[in-house]
Amino acid sequence: MNRVFNFSAGPSALPVEVLQTAAEEMLNYKDAGMSVMEMSHRSAAYEDIQEEAKTDLKDLMAIPDNYEILFLQGGASTQFAMVPLNLMTGSGKADFLLTGSWAKKAYQEAARYGDAKVVVSSEEDTFSYIPKTSEADFRKDADYVHICVNNTIYGTRFKPNQLPTVSNIPLVADMSSNILSEAYDVSKFGLIYAGAQKNMGPSGVCVVIIRKDLIGTAMDITPTMLNYKTQADADSKFNTPPCYSIYMCGLVYKWLKKLGGIDAIESINKEKANKLYDFIDNSKLYKGTVAVEDRSLMNVPFITGNKELDALFVKESKKAGLENLKGHRSVGGMRASIYNAMPMAGVDALIDFMKKFEKTNG
Amino acid sequence: MNRVFNFSAGPSALPVEVLQTAAEEMLNYKDAGMSVMEMSHRSAAYEDIQEEAKTDLKDLMAIPDNYEILFLQGGASTQFAMVPLNLMTGSGKADFLLTGSWAKKAYQEAARYGDAKVVVSSEEDTFSYIPKTSEADFRKDADYVHICVNNTIYGTRFKPNQLPTVSNIPLVADMSSNILSEAYDVSKFGLIYAGAQKNMGPSGVCVVIIRKDLIGTAMDITPTMLNYKTQADADSKFNTPPCYSIYMCGLVYKWLKKLGGIDAIESINKEKANKLYDFIDNSKLYKGTVAVEDRSLMNVPFITGNKELDALFVKESKKAGLENLKGHRSVGGMRASIYNAMPMAGVDALIDFMKKFEKTNG
Repeated sequence: MNRVFNFSAGPSALPVEVLQTAAEEMLNYKDAGMSVMEMSHRSAAYEDIQEEAKTDLKDLMAIPDNYEILFLQGGASTQFAMVPLNLMTGSGKADFLLTGSWAKKAYQEAARYGDAKVVVSSEEDTFSYIPKTSEADFRKDADYVHICVNNTIYGTRFKPNQLPTVSNIPLVADMSSNILSEAYDVSKFGLIYAGAQKNMGPSGVCVVIIRKDLIGTAMDITPTMLNYKTQADADSKFNTPPCYSIYMCGLVYKWLKKLGGIDAIESINKEKANKLYDFIDNSKLYKGTVAVEDRSLMNVPFITGNKELDALFVKESKKAGLENLKGHRSVGGMRASIYNAMPMAGVDALIDFMKKFEKTNG
Repeated sequence: MNRVFNFSAGPSALPVEVLQTAAEEMLNYKDAGMSVMEMSHRSAAYEDIQEEAKTDLKDLMAIPDNYEILFLQGGASTQFAMVPLNLMTGSGKADFLLTGSWAKKAYQEAARYGDAKVVVSSEEDTFSYIPKTSEADFRKDADYVHICVNNTIYGTRFKPNQLPTVSNIPLVADMSSNILSEAYDVSKFGLIYAGAQKNMGPSGVCVVIIRKDLIGTAMDITPTMLNYKTQADADSKFNTPPCYSIYMCGLVYKWLKKLGGIDAIESINKEKANKLYDFIDNSKLYKGTVAVEDRSLMNVPFITGNKELDALFVKESKKAGLENLKGHRSVGGMRASIYNAMPMAGVDALIDFMKKFEKTNG
C-alpha cells in the first residue's frame, strides 16, 4: 500500500490499524447501516462512541473524578482566548512561562483580557531550553499559571517531574504535542488542553480536561460556545460536536489501551527518542539544537550547521520515503516528529538514511 | 452492505460514492503515502484539497469575487456570537426574524453584544410559517438583518424569491440546513453561514461566505480566532483547520458538480419533496404541520394527530430500515429530512411504508 514514514509535526501520522478500522467502518459502522459521519449526535450509537472515548481517555490518563473531559472545536488557538475568558476572573492576573511561540501566543491573547505577566522566557535563545522557576516567581493571587508542556517547534519539554511549583495556583497547560506520550499527573493541573492532531486523531477537535471547580466563572463577554460551563453542562453536545474526529480519537485511545496504555507507550517513546538522540550525539555531521535535559520525546530538531546541506537532506530524505523532515522556518534545519503512531521502524529508517547521507556528504 | 435510509436532521446521510472514495483513500490519498488526516495543513497536497473545495463551492453557488469563503470551526452556534462580535459595530443594532429556535438562539446571543430587535416572530404558532416583512419593518441604520433560511425543526423556508427586502442593510443568513439544495442569489446576502453536517459533509466545519467589505470591523473583545479578519487573512489556516472535514466537503462538492450542480439537485430535491408532500396531502392519516407556501424542501414534518400512533410509526419504520424519522421534541410527530444525499429511492421507500402503515393503522 506504499505508506511513507511521516515525520510531520502535525497533523501527523496515525496508527495504521486505526486507519484500517476507519476505512472498514466508513459505510457501515457496526451494523448501524450508516457511517459515523452520518449519525445524529443524539443517537444512542453515537452517544456510546463519545462516552467510550471519554472513559478510555480517563483511564489512559488516570484523570481524577473531579475533572471534566470536554471535546471542543477551534484548536488550542481558541483555548488561548477561552482560558482567560473563563479563568482570568478572580484577580484578573495570570502568569506565563514563555518557552516557544505557541506559549507566547497564549500569553498575547490573555493579555487582551487581563493582567498577563511573562515570568520567564527563553526567547532570546530561540527557546532552546526550559527556564527554571521557583514558587516565589509567581504572583500569589494569580488566577492561573500557563505553560506549554511540549514545544513542537523547538523540541523542548517540561518533564513530568519538572513542572513549575505553583502552590495553590491552578496550572494551565497546553499539552497539544505530547498528551498521551508519557505519564503526567493530571491532579497537578487545573486545566489541560490539547489539539488532537498530533497524538490523538485528526485536526478539528481539541480535548480539554478541566478541574470542576474552575467551571462557571466566565466573564460576561464570553461567547456562549466559549464558556466551559456551556460545554460541561451539555457534555460537549451543546451543539453538534465534531463527531467523526471524536470517533477517530476514540479509536486511537483503544489502540493505545491495547498496546498497554501510557506506561507502554512511554517506554516505546523513550526508546525511540533515545535511539535518535544517541545517534545524533555520536555523529560528526548532525547536532541537536536544544539543552539536553529539556529534550522533547516527540519533536527532535537537528542541524548539520550548513544550510545547503540541510536543504539537500530534506530533499533526499523525501525521495527515500521519509516525509516532512524540514524544520520549522524559525529554527531551520531538520525536525523529526516521532509521535506515538511513529513506529520504531520509522526511526530506524531515519537513522539508516542519516548514516548514508553522512557517508556521502559528511 | 446493508445501508439504511437515514432521514436524520443532521448529521445526516452522505452520498454513498463519497463515502466509498473516502474509504478507498483512507490509508493512502492519491499516492501521497498517507491519509488526508495525517497531512500537514501546510503541505502542497492538503493546500490543493482546501483550494479545490473553495473553488468548487464558489462555482456551485456562483459566489461573486467580492466574497470570501471561510472554513471555520464551532458550528453555526459559534457564528451566533461571531456575527455580532464582527458586524454589530456600526450603530450596534441588528434586526431579527424569529422563524424557529435556531433563529431565536442567534438573536439571544446577539442581544448580549448590542441592540438586537425581534422584527417579526411566528413563535406563538410553533413557528409553523414564515412571517412576511417589508422594507419599512427594518431599522434603516441596523448593522444587519438576520434570518434562518431553512428551519430544520419546523420544516419551513424562505424561498429564494421571498427573502426579506432589506435595501442596503447586509442580510445575514444561517443556511445550515439548505445550503446547496436550490439556487439562492449570494449577492443578496452580506454573510451566509452553514454548518456542514446536513448538505456538505461531516460535522466539525462551518462554511462562512462573507462580503469582503464586512471584514475587519470586529469589536475589541473579539477572540482572535473569532475575528473574520484573522481567518480571511490566513485563508482559513490561521491555525490547523479541520482538514479532514474540509476534504469530505470537497468530495461532496465534486459529487454535486458531477450531478449537474445546483440546478440539477434543485430539480431532484423539488421532485422528492413534491412527491412526499403530495402523498401526505392526499392521505387520510397524515397531515403536514406548516403553511403550505413556506414548506421546506429539506425537512418534511408530518403527524397522524395521535401520539401513540406517531410513536408506533417511528418504531415500525425503524424496523423497516427507515431511520431517524422521529420529529423534534418541540413539534412531535415525524420528520423526514431529505437532504441532497437522500436518493429518490429513499423517498419512495418511505412513501411505501407510509401506505402500508396507513392500511394497517388508518
